[in-house]
Amino acid sequence: MVVKVLGQPHYACPRRVILALLEKEIEYEIVLVDGKVGEDKGPEYLKLQPFGLYPAIQDGDLTLFESRAIIRYYAEKYKNQGTNLLGKTLEEKGIVEQWVEVEGQNFNPPLMQLVIHILVNPVLGLPSDPKMIEESEKKLVKVLNIYEEKLSKTKYLAGDFFSLADLTHLPLTYYILEPLKKPYLVRDRKHVSAWWDDITSRSSWKKSVELYPFPF
Amino acid sequence: MVVKVLGQPHYACPRRVILALLEKEIEYEIVLVDGKVGEDKGPEYLKLQPFGLYPAIQDGDLTLFESRAIIRYYAEKYKNQGTNLLGKTLEEKGIVEQWVEVEGQNFNPPLMQLVIHILVNPVLGLPSDPKMIEESEKKLVKVLNIYEEKLSKTKYLAGDFFSLADLTHLPLTYYILEPLKKPYLVRDRKHVSAWWDDITSRSSWKKSVELYPFPF
Repeated sequence: MVVKVLGQPHYACPRRVILALLEKEIEYEIVLVDGKVGEDKGPEYLKLQPFGLYPAIQDGDLTLFESRAIIRYYAEKYKNQGTNLLGKTLEEKGIVEQWVEVEGQNFNPPLMQLVIHILVNPVLGLPSDPKMIEESEKKLVKVLNIYEEKLSKTKYLAGDFFSLADLTHLPLTYYILEPLKKPYLVRDRKHVSAWWDDITSRSSWKKSVELYPFPF
Repeated sequence: MVVKVLGQPHYACPRRVILALLEKEIEYEIVLVDGKVGEDKGPEYLKLQPFGLYPAIQDGDLTLFESRAIIRYYAEKYKNQGTNLLGKTLEEKGIVEQWVEVEGQNFNPPLMQLVIHILVNPVLGLPSDPKMIEESEKKLVKVLNIYEEKLSKTKYLAGDFFSLADLTHLPLTYYILEPLKKPYLVRDRKHVSAWWDDITSRSSWKKSVELYPFPF
């Protein structure tokens, strides 16, 4: 059964799912859902993803949405295929889950505010809030300082093994370096910088960028 | 081994963990960390929880933080003890994970904005933003309308079984009805209202409220 990934594959959350499928060597196909013509808010897509957000997957009878739920599902379903993304013990898995949550709750929110106020609002003709940009960067710096400390002790976030904890950070960390043009946030931190070079040297990342180039 | 739960047990995120421990019939003890005297930002606590947020747990050699990671860990570790909180199949577990993520990514953020602007800022002498309050309530209404639709089809969020998907919503949904005084958001939705009555009739919820009363 080929997994269908619905959405725009160059967006951050579908890319998170695609990275997991590539790491797990799972066959998939993209079903384009075009927000520019309103397909993401159309009745067909809303039946699968009621929030009208990317991505959703269809895998036989199963429909799933929320990228971090989808990557957990495949990491566990194909435990013994491709890269092990969950660690070897329940305790290691707990630590993986912890850093996946840190990404969703602490890293992603300020970074999304930077994306909205620096990249999205100017395109939409909406005002950007300089105070929000300043505060969000401060919050992100605090998170990255904690990562720097953690990555000085272990090669990856959850330990000395690559896992969902690292994978989930890939799509949006790219935004820091490229479209947001704030590479110093990564490069001024020795261990975060080495971690970024390491996780972007993986074939899954390279393939995802080659197949679905960033539009900027 | 008794699980140590560090934090303030009447706060929403520690309460989420305590509810899971009660459902799984796991012995625990509270280790109070008092933010009022800065213990949450003190060196001892920051060693365990580098963000200085509640809760963290200590369980033998394992330290974990992020409440939604902790509840997943115990739901899986004690799969056959207490309430099954993950469903019976990998597919059911995937759907549970989906709604846990919806809570963390879609339900929690606007609700936290309401808590900050209606409850927290006035106490701290900081300004509240009426536009933010209005926008956040609108976002929350959209989420609750999706829940209403889902709960018209299944008794609980992930299906006809109580799971982490429902449990994770308990602490903050209470804020809508009580301190925020917006019960109509729940009560005007027939299925959300019935779901709320059902999940708050569980002994885990009753015990948590009795042991750790809300301070308002």
